[in-house]
Amino acid sequence: MPVAGKMHEFMDRSSWIRKMFENGARLKAEHGSGKVFDFSLGNPKLEPPVQFQQVVQELVADRTAGVHGYMPNAGYQETREAVARTVAQEQDTPVAGDHLVMTCGAGGGLNVVLKAILDPQDEVVVPTPHFVEYGFYADNHGGVLRHAETTEDFDLDVEAIEATVTPKTRAVLINSPNNPTGRVYGAETLRSLGVMLEAKQKEIGRTIYLISDEPYRKIVYGGVEVPPVMAFYSNTLVVSSYSKDLSLAGERIGYVAAHPGVDGIDKLMGALILANRILGFVNAPALMQRAVARLQGVSVDISPYEENRDLLYGTLTEAGFSVPEPEGAFYLFPKSPIQDDAAFARELQDRLVLVVPGSGFMGPGHVRISYCVSRQTVEGALPIFREIGERYFG
Amino acid sequence: MPVAGKMHEFMDRSSWIRKMFENGARLKAEHGSGKVFDFSLGNPKLEPPVQFQQVVQELVADRTAGVHGYMPNAGYQETREAVARTVAQEQDTPVAGDHLVMTCGAGGGLNVVLKAILDPQDEVVVPTPHFVEYGFYADNHGGVLRHAETTEDFDLDVEAIEATVTPKTRAVLINSPNNPTGRVYGAETLRSLGVMLEAKQKEIGRTIYLISDEPYRKIVYGGVEVPPVMAFYSNTLVVSSYSKDLSLAGERIGYVAAHPGVDGIDKLMGALILANRILGFVNAPALMQRAVARLQGVSVDISPYEENRDLLYGTLTEAGFSVPEPEGAFYLFPKSPIQDDAAFARELQDRLVLVVPGSGFMGPGHVRISYCVSRQTVEGALPIFREIGERYFG
Repeated sequence: MPVAGKMHEFMDRSSWIRKMFENGARLKAEHGSGKVFDFSLGNPKLEPPVQFQQVVQELVADRTAGVHGYMPNAGYQETREAVARTVAQEQDTPVAGDHLVMTCGAGGGLNVVLKAILDPQDEVVVPTPHFVEYGFYADNHGGVLRHAETTEDFDLDVEAIEATVTPKTRAVLINSPNNPTGRVYGAETLRSLGVMLEAKQKEIGRTIYLISDEPYRKIVYGGVEVPPVMAFYSNTLVVSSYSKDLSLAGERIGYVAAHPGVDGIDKLMGALILANRILGFVNAPALMQRAVARLQGVSVDISPYEENRDLLYGTLTEAGFSVPEPEGAFYLFPKSPIQDDAAFARELQDRLVLVVPGSGFMGPGHVRISYCVSRQTVEGALPIFREIGERYFG
Repeated sequence: MPVAGKMHEFMDRSSWIRKMFENGARLKAEHGSGKVFDFSLGNPKLEPPVQFQQVVQELVADRTAGVHGYMPNAGYQETREAVARTVAQEQDTPVAGDHLVMTCGAGGGLNVVLKAILDPQDEVVVPTPHFVEYGFYADNHGGVLRHAETTEDFDLDVEAIEATVTPKTRAVLINSPNNPTGRVYGAETLRSLGVMLEAKQKEIGRTIYLISDEPYRKIVYGGVEVPPVMAFYSNTLVVSSYSKDLSLAGERIGYVAAHPGVDGIDKLMGALILANRILGFVNAPALMQRAVARLQGVSVDISPYEENRDLLYGTLTEAGFSVPEPEGAFYLFPKSPIQDDAAFARELQDRLVLVVPGSGFMGPGHVRISYCVSRQTVEGALPIFREIGERYFG
């Protein structure tokens, strides 16, 4: 076989999702994209803030020598320090520039972290449902995902995580605000998680990292705050990006930040920087590094997402769907009225509403509705959700 | 250990190189950077062409919706088609947009290729000396490098490669113009390589890819031409970037192009695109993709590199050093006058000339001189090379 056996298998396994996307594209071609209501992608609809354009214009006009060349693999020191000041504040922890590596988005950052810390067959505990890429990322570096269930409304279940930790556990990977559920983990839950992990580290006699994947930190609604994960556990690594809060998903700019109290911080930073280099990232894109250094504190106005959330959440619950109110990110994860979520997604597709079956997120019996879309898309779909709810629950 | 055992080992093994770089930095701090002649890095000194700045200014002013968001993992279709037109011409092969994946530089591209094709313990044959990262890249994806010696003047030795092919061989990885030797492989050599690989494929009954890493294709001197590698062998994948010819090394923009006649081209393209996604690259940086689509045919004026080459090559050979004339890239790889190349590099460092020992490139007994530097750096170092030559060879 001219491709790797594993890649062959991955392609086979995901062929049904690809087929759904292809059907969606076909429907758009047939009916016109305005008639198809696409909630399947996490590609931010909002444009980057105007300051982004201004800053990039200025940076490109600046002809200082070498600004498009290589810089140290960790990134520009100026950028690292600017980002670290923000992270220190958000995490209530004295994170400095040297504790930070700029990466090609959070996806790049997660791979850098897992490459740096995983020995073969090391386990990474992940609460379900979870972002589908985590399984690939762990596997890339010889690791194995272990799933821990969440509560009925998708909150962390610290006992379930505890029960999943084994002597092979190297990390627990959480994502709050969560894709696909929109859940934000509260301070008390994180405190319990930290206490449990401290005890488990002692018990099994090895470092367990808490990896906090936080690209949606700034996308929260109704006054919800995202607690400082680092404040509750010192072996914490925060991974994030500007993909969602500056709407720069295609530009691949993010970072990994380590708690300064992480076990063997110097060795770990060395490993993260080396991983960034040898995975072929080399460094995060130069121009975007210089841009985000100047855009700390700037983010998109998320009120259109909040309006979408309110419209969809209100309509779905009124229509009888069971769905916890999302506190952040831009996803809803309602229960499918039938157990076969792929069949339900196909039913919606027949009505020109595109969603992703929850099975893709290890959350079978649900569908993911991504509402980082236009108001028209939301409004066009509301009557369809009402009709379908009427049929199942009316 | 809080970092992966393998990363620990990598850091240990490369600590001597890091030490050399640290010493270099210390010398610059002590003596002033103008007094230290640094030939240790492959970071292009020339600025990007003026057209780059113009194009990026225009692109940033363009407020079309979604231009900084995700696009398909393979890249913008417009970019793929623009790049494919150039590659088709360079390779004398009908490469189309669909045969191409935009990547985060050539380093990203090589990782995408190796992820897509390598099964555990598959072998990748590489002529020595070679770019130091290849070993990490193969290892990232479970592969193993097998070294094949080159001729005395660093030309491909097809028989040596043939002798290194085993039933576990999945690819031969060549790099022309070469880092660290500056050698360009000629058409006849590549033709023999193609014939040998065709025969070996039949013999072992599996696809052997020829991966041609070509970021220096446009950096050649004295009328030398880089032959179309694809024209000699259909299972060829070309990996390249705009790091060197547009001086955009920090912006991470490159590509993988497949010969349209590659075995199972559709399956392979699917695997390359999936690899780009799941390794965390997701896609090549959006703005740079749009820029290079408009900059096909544009490159830096390489005459300053050629002047550096002529000055250094002339001085080194006059001084008695044994060094083949480089035909491309911006490296010279002279024999060290003593077998211990690290000791010789330290001797040069004591004279404030920084080079990299050839052992780092699997070419012990040599040093690499990178001349993508200013004319002043070159001129400052010439008397020192003359003196050292006088001492060893005079």
